[in-house]
Amino acid sequence: MSVPSCTQIVLAARPQGAVRASDFRQETVPLAEPAEGQVQLQVLYLSLDPYMRGRMDERKSYAPPVPLGHAMEGESVGRVIATRHPDYAVGDIVLARTGWRSHANVAAAGLRKLDPAAAPVSTGLGVLGMPGFTAYSGLRFIGQPRTGETVVVAAASGPVGSLVGQLAQIQGARAVGIAGGARKCAHVKDELGFDAVVDHGDPDFPALLADACPDGIDVYFENVGGAVWQAVLPLLNKYARVPVCGLIAQYDGAPAQGPDRLPATMREVLSRSLTLRGFINTEFAAHYPDFLREVGEAVASGRIRYREDIVDGLENAPRAFMGMLKGANFGKLLVRVS
Amino acid sequence: MSVPSCTQIVLAARPQGAVRASDFRQETVPLAEPAEGQVQLQVLYLSLDPYMRGRMDERKSYAPPVPLGHAMEGESVGRVIATRHPDYAVGDIVLARTGWRSHANVAAAGLRKLDPAAAPVSTGLGVLGMPGFTAYSGLRFIGQPRTGETVVVAAASGPVGSLVGQLAQIQGARAVGIAGGARKCAHVKDELGFDAVVDHGDPDFPALLADACPDGIDVYFENVGGAVWQAVLPLLNKYARVPVCGLIAQYDGAPAQGPDRLPATMREVLSRSLTLRGFINTEFAAHYPDFLREVGEAVASGRIRYREDIVDGLENAPRAFMGMLKGANFGKLLVRVS
Repeated sequence: MSVPSCTQIVLAARPQGAVRASDFRQETVPLAEPAEGQVQLQVLYLSLDPYMRGRMDERKSYAPPVPLGHAMEGESVGRVIATRHPDYAVGDIVLARTGWRSHANVAAAGLRKLDPAAAPVSTGLGVLGMPGFTAYSGLRFIGQPRTGETVVVAAASGPVGSLVGQLAQIQGARAVGIAGGARKCAHVKDELGFDAVVDHGDPDFPALLADACPDGIDVYFENVGGAVWQAVLPLLNKYARVPVCGLIAQYDGAPAQGPDRLPATMREVLSRSLTLRGFINTEFAAHYPDFLREVGEAVASGRIRYREDIVDGLENAPRAFMGMLKGANFGKLLVRVS
Repeated sequence: MSVPSCTQIVLAARPQGAVRASDFRQETVPLAEPAEGQVQLQVLYLSLDPYMRGRMDERKSYAPPVPLGHAMEGESVGRVIATRHPDYAVGDIVLARTGWRSHANVAAAGLRKLDPAAAPVSTGLGVLGMPGFTAYSGLRFIGQPRTGETVVVAAASGPVGSLVGQLAQIQGARAVGIAGGARKCAHVKDELGFDAVVDHGDPDFPALLADACPDGIDVYFENVGGAVWQAVLPLLNKYARVPVCGLIAQYDGAPAQGPDRLPATMREVLSRSLTLRGFINTEFAAHYPDFLREVGEAVASGRIRYREDIVDGLENAPRAFMGMLKGANFGKLLVRVS
């Protein structure tokens, strides 16, 4: 019998500006036996998420960088193919941090079992996983929209934005989405049911956003940064809340040129008593069971809708990831690994 | 008997960049009789505060601008010299929004009586007035320092900063002040009793601030903006809180040149789960009685110390105000009007 092997994508170089294909390298490595307390997984779906861009840089962030030559980090849904832990049987479907790999031995302690009868298992990486919980916790604990208020979110067809808007509506607020292109905008309005949507690629974007928010903006859920913020800032109402969970538009950016936009932002923070609050969803981990129950029920009943963008083959992960950083994905981006 | 008159300083021109003497004009105008429900005041002390700079601009802020040709706005301590309201007698000392004037007729409804036996009446414009309440409310409701945490505040010899540090210590936190020049720094450390002080004019300011904050910064009380923020940002701890009550360093600024410092600020907001929260003390007005009682007792007992910088003569108000915007005052800046 041949030695079992694992395909993986490693970080080959730290990006200089925009991520390039040469920053990644595909390798085939032997797959060891699982150790006591571990299970061996065959990865079914790998999640690609904007936060991974930060892990490619050496810069200190909320988590340490991926070391050069190591597999890219990431969460996936996998099937147990060998087990050395009594709670897990071969065939179980679990959520795990395997990285960008076809197979992995992982400690059973960090796993969560998924029930394929409750929802498609891929949702554990999206609407019922980390992106969904980011939307849920940021909106509930920081944004705190009240009835009749206006909530704006960018990347509104993506896994975080799509849930932010739908949850805002459930809480009685008005949801205004920002997305790129007619196809995504139509999805946000017609399929997800946002009250309004604005195309950030339209030359009149700032004016269109103002039109879509006649009563100003009470909550801006910041997951993109960059130019969208400049259009949002003048529309923020007194006491507006800005949960900040991502800045995808500036992850790849060159060193920032002028003018310096910080003084104007600080002036508005002061004069309109704004709250800007960064967060990582793990801060609210105690509320994860509430999230799973509430959003799980709403997904099961069809009240909350979601969209996945599934790419086939681990070898295509780098290209799909680079596309996502430019907004090319349409829905939660997943790689079907096997 | 000659017609009674009033001296006042009006806004003659909107500043272009730094405020100049020609932006003000002194006038003598007749003083009318007080109307029913009003009292007539002789102004004793006029308060000069950084927020007044904002009122000179046309730009929308949290309060409307002073119209050209109108008296500059401001709060003062005055003595009642005529009364048409039963609650006020000639000789009463009150806090009022008279503007930069020697005399004024004001509605009794907006006044607060001061008790000269409780504290020097000038403190009603400083440590026991609006600046003090800004320090108190921003620290208590936004900064929320915990025992052992580090609180940093700039303009630490001024009326807001000096109270922020002393209140932080009362709450069990470590107080680090930032001030300009050896004289102010010595006052902050030796008279006010801050745990450490750093001179923002020192060429090694960022490194000195880092040395003074070996455990990072948990609360940065932002009342200056500009270069100090750049030194503070890398030192902020995870979940640090930044109450923003003023930005004096950028009030006079030219249009902002590059580099654009906003992306770096937003990146830190995200990666360290920071809270930036602008506020105007009126938001917390319900807590004003608590403030007066708590801080009043601490001032009376000598536990909280304060310093006033008193300039004689209303005609010197513009020069004193311009100096304050450059940090020339040393303590709460007041004009002794009569």
